[in-house]
Amino acid sequence: MVNLNFKTDRPLDLIAVGRLAVDLNTEQINCPMEETRSFTKYVGGSPANIAIGAAQLGLKCGFIGKVSDDQMGRFIVRFLEEKKMDTSGVVVDKTGAVTGLAFTEIKSPNDCSILMYRDNVADLKLETSEVSEDYIKKTRALLISGTALAASPSREAVFLALEYARKHDAVVFFDLDYRPYTWTSDKETAIYYNLAAEKCDVIIGTREEFDMMEQFEKEKKTDRETAGKWFGHHAEIVVIKHGSKGSITYTKDGHSYTGGIFRTKVLKTFGAGDSYASAFIYGLMNGWEISRAMEYGSASAAIVISRHSCSEAMPTKAELDKFVKTAERIDT
Amino acid sequence: MVNLNFKTDRPLDLIAVGRLAVDLNTEQINCPMEETRSFTKYVGGSPANIAIGAAQLGLKCGFIGKVSDDQMGRFIVRFLEEKKMDTSGVVVDKTGAVTGLAFTEIKSPNDCSILMYRDNVADLKLETSEVSEDYIKKTRALLISGTALAASPSREAVFLALEYARKHDAVVFFDLDYRPYTWTSDKETAIYYNLAAEKCDVIIGTREEFDMMEQFEKEKKTDRETAGKWFGHHAEIVVIKHGSKGSITYTKDGHSYTGGIFRTKVLKTFGAGDSYASAFIYGLMNGWEISRAMEYGSASAAIVISRHSCSEAMPTKAELDKFVKTAERIDT
Amino acid sequence: MVNLNFKTDRPLDLIAVGRLAVDLNTEQINCPMEETRSFTKYVGGSPANIAIGAAQLGLKCGFIGKVSDDQMGRFIVRFLEEKKMDTSGVVVDKTGAVTGLAFTEIKSPNDCSILMYRDNVADLKLETSEVSEDYIKKTRALLISGTALAASPSREAVFLALEYARKHDAVVFFDLDYRPYTWTSDKETAIYYNLAAEKCDVIIGTREEFDMMEQFEKEKKTDRETAGKWFGHHAEIVVIKHGSKGSITYTKDGHSYTGGIFRTKVLKTFGAGDSYASAFIYGLMNGWEISRAMEYGSASAAIVISRHSCSEAMPTKAELDKFVKTAERIDT
Amino acid sequence: MVNLNFKTDRPLDLIAVGRLAVDLNTEQINCPMEETRSFTKYVGGSPANIAIGAAQLGLKCGFIGKVSDDQMGRFIVRFLEEKKMDTSGVVVDKTGAVTGLAFTEIKSPNDCSILMYRDNVADLKLETSEVSEDYIKKTRALLISGTALAASPSREAVFLALEYARKHDAVVFFDLDYRPYTWTSDKETAIYYNLAAEKCDVIIGTREEFDMMEQFEKEKKTDRETAGKWFGHHAEIVVIKHGSKGSITYTKDGHSYTGGIFRTKVLKTFGAGDSYASAFIYGLMNGWEISRAMEYGSASAAIVISRHSCSEAMPTKAELDKFVKTAERIDT
Repeated sequence: MVNLNFKTDRPLDLIAVGRLAVDLNTEQINCPMEETRSFTKYVGGSPANIAIGAAQLGLKCGFIGKVSDDQMGRFIVRFLEEKKMDTSGVVVDKTGAVTGLAFTEIKSPNDCSILMYRDNVADLKLETSEVSEDYIKKTRALLISGTALAASPSREAVFLALEYARKHDAVVFFDLDYRPYTWTSDKETAIYYNLAAEKCDVIIGTREEFDMMEQFEKEKKTDRETAGKWFGHHAEIVVIKHGSKGSITYTKDGHSYTGGIFRTKVLKTFGAGDSYASAFIYGLMNGWEISRAMEYGSASAAIVISRHSCSEAMPTKAELDKFVKTAERIDT
Repeated sequence: MVNLNFKTDRPLDLIAVGRLAVDLNTEQINCPMEETRSFTKYVGGSPANIAIGAAQLGLKCGFIGKVSDDQMGRFIVRFLEEKKMDTSGVVVDKTGAVTGLAFTEIKSPNDCSILMYRDNVADLKLETSEVSEDYIKKTRALLISGTALAASPSREAVFLALEYARKHDAVVFFDLDYRPYTWTSDKETAIYYNLAAEKCDVIIGTREEFDMMEQFEKEKKTDRETAGKWFGHHAEIVVIKHGSKGSITYTKDGHSYTGGIFRTKVLKTFGAGDSYASAFIYGLMNGWEISRAMEYGSASAAIVISRHSCSEAMPTKAELDKFVKTAERIDT
Repeated sequence: MVNLNFKTDRPLDLIAVGRLAVDLNTEQINCPMEETRSFTKYVGGSPANIAIGAAQLGLKCGFIGKVSDDQMGRFIVRFLEEKKMDTSGVVVDKTGAVTGLAFTEIKSPNDCSILMYRDNVADLKLETSEVSEDYIKKTRALLISGTALAASPSREAVFLALEYARKHDAVVFFDLDYRPYTWTSDKETAIYYNLAAEKCDVIIGTREEFDMMEQFEKEKKTDRETAGKWFGHHAEIVVIKHGSKGSITYTKDGHSYTGGIFRTKVLKTFGAGDSYASAFIYGLMNGWEISRAMEYGSASAAIVISRHSCSEAMPTKAELDKFVKTAERIDT
Repeated sequence: MVNLNFKTDRPLDLIAVGRLAVDLNTEQINCPMEETRSFTKYVGGSPANIAIGAAQLGLKCGFIGKVSDDQMGRFIVRFLEEKKMDTSGVVVDKTGAVTGLAFTEIKSPNDCSILMYRDNVADLKLETSEVSEDYIKKTRALLISGTALAASPSREAVFLALEYARKHDAVVFFDLDYRPYTWTSDKETAIYYNLAAEKCDVIIGTREEFDMMEQFEKEKKTDRETAGKWFGHHAEIVVIKHGSKGSITYTKDGHSYTGGIFRTKVLKTFGAGDSYASAFIYGLMNGWEISRAMEYGSASAAIVISRHSCSEAMPTKAELDKFVKTAERIDT
């Protein structure tokens, strides 16, 4: 049984905090980037994608983040507004920072890579003074994402958002989203991931991400031990993903749930995690059983990886319900 | 009653972590620095002073810190060894960092100031890889000091030391030691002070330091409310200092204790807090009642502020016992 | 009469030094970037464009520069090689630098702007040790571009290239190419532009660029006075551009030449200066009269601004000759 | 014959530009710094010492430099004023920079070393906007010192001062004063030393300093070749120092002069070069023959290395004249 206590009397369901970026997705697939000629522009960034996905399913979503004071920044805000998200917590950088870019390369459905532009990015310049306690009081849940912990002042802004969320009983989701290129050392990474995870209710990550967080431990932990460690802090739910082998969800009451995947035509692998998270969170916030929320997450991922973008590819509730009914499940 | 559970079977009583520095104390007192001509060199830095003071009283003390690879760094290590401290946790910087300097100016006993050299200092370059779990396992208590949280990688090293101390049941003392010039913003300061304080057993600071930590709260807290907040985390004892009006100590069981001060001939005010902490910790680690430990702290402070240096001025147990017996108490 | 003494016995005609970058040109024209959806990728950067343009006309061109160790860097080198340029002086960055990007926005033919990504770019990381005296000995002329002076170590690499060029009697062209966003202050800019210009034979820039270089002078100079100043150093030719009003070329012997422009269908204004320089240099290196070289420059510019890219749009000799014969001249 | 054309109608004889610092000279000599206990504070920095030495001999000296906004900075300005120097060109930093420190260690008269504090120093923050053309117009000569070229914005400020000096016919002295610890690479060093030296009338340095400047040459130069290279630019006099083997001065007319040294009781070697330069410049500015100016330089050096400080040790004209008459010359 899930023991997440979502407050009911709040104007927003979910506020995500962190990265707002731009994806430049290759228009020439099955081709190395040296030979591609053109790119299509989409809103990107893991917490942005998750919030967009959740908004697409019907949750009332807000965002706390920072965008560049240029065409890229304005493009992002405009897209969030088109998706009916509340952007009152999105501030505009005034220091000349740029929007982070992710150029995608699709050599084959299983050989995808990303070329990142992450120097002087606006999203990491979010400051504590730009995190509003009154705004966080308005939401039933907060979503944080690990990349926002990678540098000051964004790092401190996230810890302050966590503080306010705990103070006002917003449920906190932590999507680990570990991107090594953003960090200076893996030890520093582990320190801040752990400090943040201690304050979260639901932690979602890959086995490799949890391993990174446990690097100071002398012995390797099993999935169950890892989950148990976080139940000793504030976690109620821990999701550990094992790539194509599926994922396993642990709850504080001792249960665990194994998730399957759906058959789909893979165009690229980007966006699988974000779409999973958006639909899983949607399920939990609607009081569903863990298994059903997990299935909804898998279905959303199956849809997104068959499409060209991440953010624009997020399915509506109707699309997702139809997919769950008709798609073929695969044993993992 | 004090509920600190000091393990008994460990080779070290206290390991301090953080700043090792050099004080350059003016030889011309009651004179502005523009006119002074010469300086005497002493080991300095708040956690260094506290550990030296505790060692002087008979505790077995170690240190985790980093010194410059030059004459200043070697001078520091040598002095700690003369004081019978264990320096196996002190590493030597290899990046060209310097030892932090504090030039003192004594215009009058009550008009003292410090000119700091804190750019590119070795102490803030302590890394997580230089914090040994096995070393921390050997100590009954750990002392951290706020300045070591001011910058990476020292900041992460302190959080790792805290993690190990909690894992191995070492009692953790936190001397707030807030020096604004070391920090980039007071909001950043508060975030990390709070994250660290949540993991400590004994927190010692001035009212102003606690106020700084509470800057995100909408309402100002009383001393008792401040202490209560930390008892909600891991603290057992909270000491709040009010300058010349004395200090007040709160314990988790609801009691509070007011400390007095001794009459002394003040040469300068530097070192009062460090000497207080060293003797107070000594008392607690010997199982004394709070009031007696506080009185011992005050006596040590009274001695140190009458002398020229901080570190070399730390009294022995014999000196301190004699002072407590003979010195005059002042009502505050 | 032009008094440039091009050595005749060398394997290369022109080596350019400086920026190798990528242009991402909008595919939706007459539209703000907030609304554009896709971009086409081209090689860019002023000295790259000039060298490509000169190679396209038949000069044997080399390049001294630095590219990122990723798909963007490899794309650039490949393109230079397709244009038959010698890339033995192009080194690959190993520090994680990126390729500079220029996103273009074409709101109307006369309202074009560029969104730059210039943080941590490979081109500014060129080092003195990567500038080969033996390589510069092989060329009849060297082209430097102001942006490469914007930061260390590229700045020093350019000064060293200048030193070698002077030592080995290569004629030095300086295309001022002042881009304020790359520099920290306009005073710093002027200092280094002046130090470099003192060592050059041909200086090409806009009136605004020359004004920037004269900011320490108490009185504003006329074009003739500006040219005269540089003739007092090493210059033989100074070209001062006045935008749509055409340009004026001064030679050390006291003559001046006014250049006209051609009627063309303007798609965007980018690339006008680079194409002008490439054809003008081509003319000078073939011993043409100043006026003819200027006309060739104008013709090349007229062609490039009617096309979508800069680098790929550079005309061949056949195209250019045909254009000069058939196009309509406009009085300025 | 010396062909330096000193203007006669100017209120100042010499303006030095660059480093104003503090020396902390050990009070315990023949002792490693790990064991010394105290330091005396003096004004220091090569161009400061030279200007102070010249002022002490009677030249009217000014200074262009930047000091910290603290007791150290005020101490420096006060001392210059006591020495009757014009300090109207000395500006006070407002960014929190510190005064550079040099702690001296004298293990023996021939085993001296310096521990430098050069992070975030005020002297390197001098900006072009703080260099006044009107001020430089007032002086007969300008002295620059290599260390001021080590970083921006001081580097550009020196180039601007050079520009103004050349424009207003002030004779320019360049004391190479190469301190490796201040620079990031020796190639960068050589680039800027060469760019500056090309604009100077008198260049004074050690053989090692000239070697550093010639690192891009394929063959090692003799002293005469080195001097000849600079005579091809603007130099009239080149002084090449060979340590205890004395120095040799070349003039553009083809002559050279060998300098001897005086017997003295060496306390430490610091300050020899600065005192030499101050008296040598004094001689040149008074129209003395090269040999006499060199002898005066050697005498000043002999006096200063027998004394505890550099700046305060600079002899008066009376002291120096007496020393020259009575001291014993040594063959080198």
